[in-house]
Amino acid sequence: MTTLASLTNDQVRLAARPTGLPTDASWQFTEEPVAEPAEGGVLVKVLALSLDPAMRGWMNEGKSYIPPVGLGEVMRAGGIGVVLASKNPAFKVGDKVTGGPGVQEYWTVAPDQLKRSGLARIDTRLGSVSQWLNVLGMPGMTGYFGLMDVGQPKAGETLLVSGAAGAVGQTVGQLARIKGLRAVGIAGGPAKCEWVVGELGFDACIDYKKPAPEGVQRWDAVREGLKQHCPNGVDIYFDNVGGDILDAALARINRKARIVICGAISQYNNAGGAMVGPKNYMSLLVNRARMEGMVVFDYAERYPQAIAEMAGYLKDGRMKSREDVVSGGVRAFPETLLKLFKGENFGKLVLEVAKE
Amino acid sequence: MTTLASLTNDQVRLAARPTGLPTDASWQFTEEPVAEPAEGGVLVKVLALSLDPAMRGWMNEGKSYIPPVGLGEVMRAGGIGVVLASKNPAFKVGDKVTGGPGVQEYWTVAPDQLKRSGLARIDTRLGSVSQWLNVLGMPGMTGYFGLMDVGQPKAGETLLVSGAAGAVGQTVGQLARIKGLRAVGIAGGPAKCEWVVGELGFDACIDYKKPAPEGVQRWDAVREGLKQHCPNGVDIYFDNVGGDILDAALARINRKARIVICGAISQYNNAGGAMVGPKNYMSLLVNRARMEGMVVFDYAERYPQAIAEMAGYLKDGRMKSREDVVSGGVRAFPETLLKLFKGENFGKLVLEVAKE
Repeated sequence: MTTLASLTNDQVRLAARPTGLPTDASWQFTEEPVAEPAEGGVLVKVLALSLDPAMRGWMNEGKSYIPPVGLGEVMRAGGIGVVLASKNPAFKVGDKVTGGPGVQEYWTVAPDQLKRSGLARIDTRLGSVSQWLNVLGMPGMTGYFGLMDVGQPKAGETLLVSGAAGAVGQTVGQLARIKGLRAVGIAGGPAKCEWVVGELGFDACIDYKKPAPEGVQRWDAVREGLKQHCPNGVDIYFDNVGGDILDAALARINRKARIVICGAISQYNNAGGAMVGPKNYMSLLVNRARMEGMVVFDYAERYPQAIAEMAGYLKDGRMKSREDVVSGGVRAFPETLLKLFKGENFGKLVLEVAKE
Repeated sequence: MTTLASLTNDQVRLAARPTGLPTDASWQFTEEPVAEPAEGGVLVKVLALSLDPAMRGWMNEGKSYIPPVGLGEVMRAGGIGVVLASKNPAFKVGDKVTGGPGVQEYWTVAPDQLKRSGLARIDTRLGSVSQWLNVLGMPGMTGYFGLMDVGQPKAGETLLVSGAAGAVGQTVGQLARIKGLRAVGIAGGPAKCEWVVGELGFDACIDYKKPAPEGVQRWDAVREGLKQHCPNGVDIYFDNVGGDILDAALARINRKARIVICGAISQYNNAGGAMVGPKNYMSLLVNRARMEGMVVFDYAERYPQAIAEMAGYLKDGRMKSREDVVSGGVRAFPETLLKLFKGENFGKLVLEVAKE
């Protein structure tokens, strides 16, 4: 067994609440000694962290679906780790676990925090560590329940999903295909779009960054793409981005369409937190359509059955997953997070904290 | 029988599409001789017309839930009339009828238009002519199906409705009370608010025009009113107005709230048709809530049962109705319509075209 006393826990704490994109001033690096777990507790060595658009919201003050990260607190993050020491019979040294360790190298879970921490063993035969942060993890569960429960897909319908090359988007589109829908993605740049169609098997992918053809004055790449690739309109729009793309989608929805509001990454870093609302929302009236929000935690009791289903698709090859794994440990967290907001990640963004 | 040849049909036609509020230039007055109905057709003398916020939308070009009124066409309007001549066994002279006569004094319905025209006899024992344009008419049906089908009310919940003194709003709030909900209205000015509470029996009404108390710098009458009158949040928000009031409501919704999108009168006259979207729409995510549009025509098959239920409430006094009846005939249409957009109507706005 490692001598715990010799270990140092590198941490990243929230130092200040940003107004736009997070900057160096948003973060503080700290070090702490690693302590033995208390009776009933567990010590986890963090292997990988999940970097998610929602993190930006957690940095803001004010009520949301979960409380904000407090100033001076270790930044909240989901992750995968390995049990390094355990004084709890439910966990043994070497177990791979998922939970919310935060942005730090070691996570000591006190016995009274065990339930709230979400600490749970994972079965690595079902998927790799990074897949457990992707298709089998929070993004996969978000895509699964967002599509299946809120979107209520029917075979033959057309699904549109933004952030199609991202963690949630890749799950949503592939799952829609499995369920017999036409799946159209929206992503930034030809490389992502080619991967979404060629590798993931979407029916089409719209490059929202596509430049105007020569001589064309008024150009909206998404609107043009929707005309071309959704000739029969959109029955389900799974929205991860908000902003202009949400408006373009609203302009193409069918009667009784369902819009799943999962995120709005285009709006999270607006200065002063001033969101721009969907100016085409009256399309909901014209089309008797609905727009509905979802939070994955509500479905926690049903994760096991969804994970089993998704693991089956991974195994039989109908579901592929791509992770953008960045190494560099917790100190690389601040700059890695920015990749999300610049659209630079290609697949689920994962920060590797330690080798297995 | 009146000599039809001696009658002149005064009409109001759409002359130009307005960019903001309709002006004199939007309309053209015409006169036509009144013709005998063809075999199988009906001639209706118009008694009263329904003036609705939706009319503004019908004046715009472009696809909506129904086609726009064409330039040069008689302006579309719902109304009540009396059969003056009939060559159809289903209608006899003297029958009171409802339908879409448009803004004119006489309505000749050709046999091949009979079905599309919505022409139907009404039972004036169930309600007066103006009640047939209000609680028993389109606004009443809109309120009924919007609340019951889209809003899915449960006893004990809190309903909030904007335009509470208007045609749809008065129905929605009273019906919510009948179904065991707490009903809170939003209306402009103390007279409307007092009537909404004192006469209609709403639990409270928020005056969105209420001036700031002395010394208060930052004042939002709706937000303050919501804090005071919806201390347990809002479970159903029935929106007739859009804009800032929709945003204020979004900020107060409960988990699993339903927002019924019925209209957006605050936005219909924005120059260039530039709607402002609800910037607080991410409250749908935080609260796992939904926003859903509805169009009353979808429920046409179920009107008879809803009318029977509402007529029962009118009879036993649990439902009251108020109409703002303006006389002056069809030529008074242009200026009367503007009352809606200035919030000057008090109750369902009806234009009297002829005495019974």
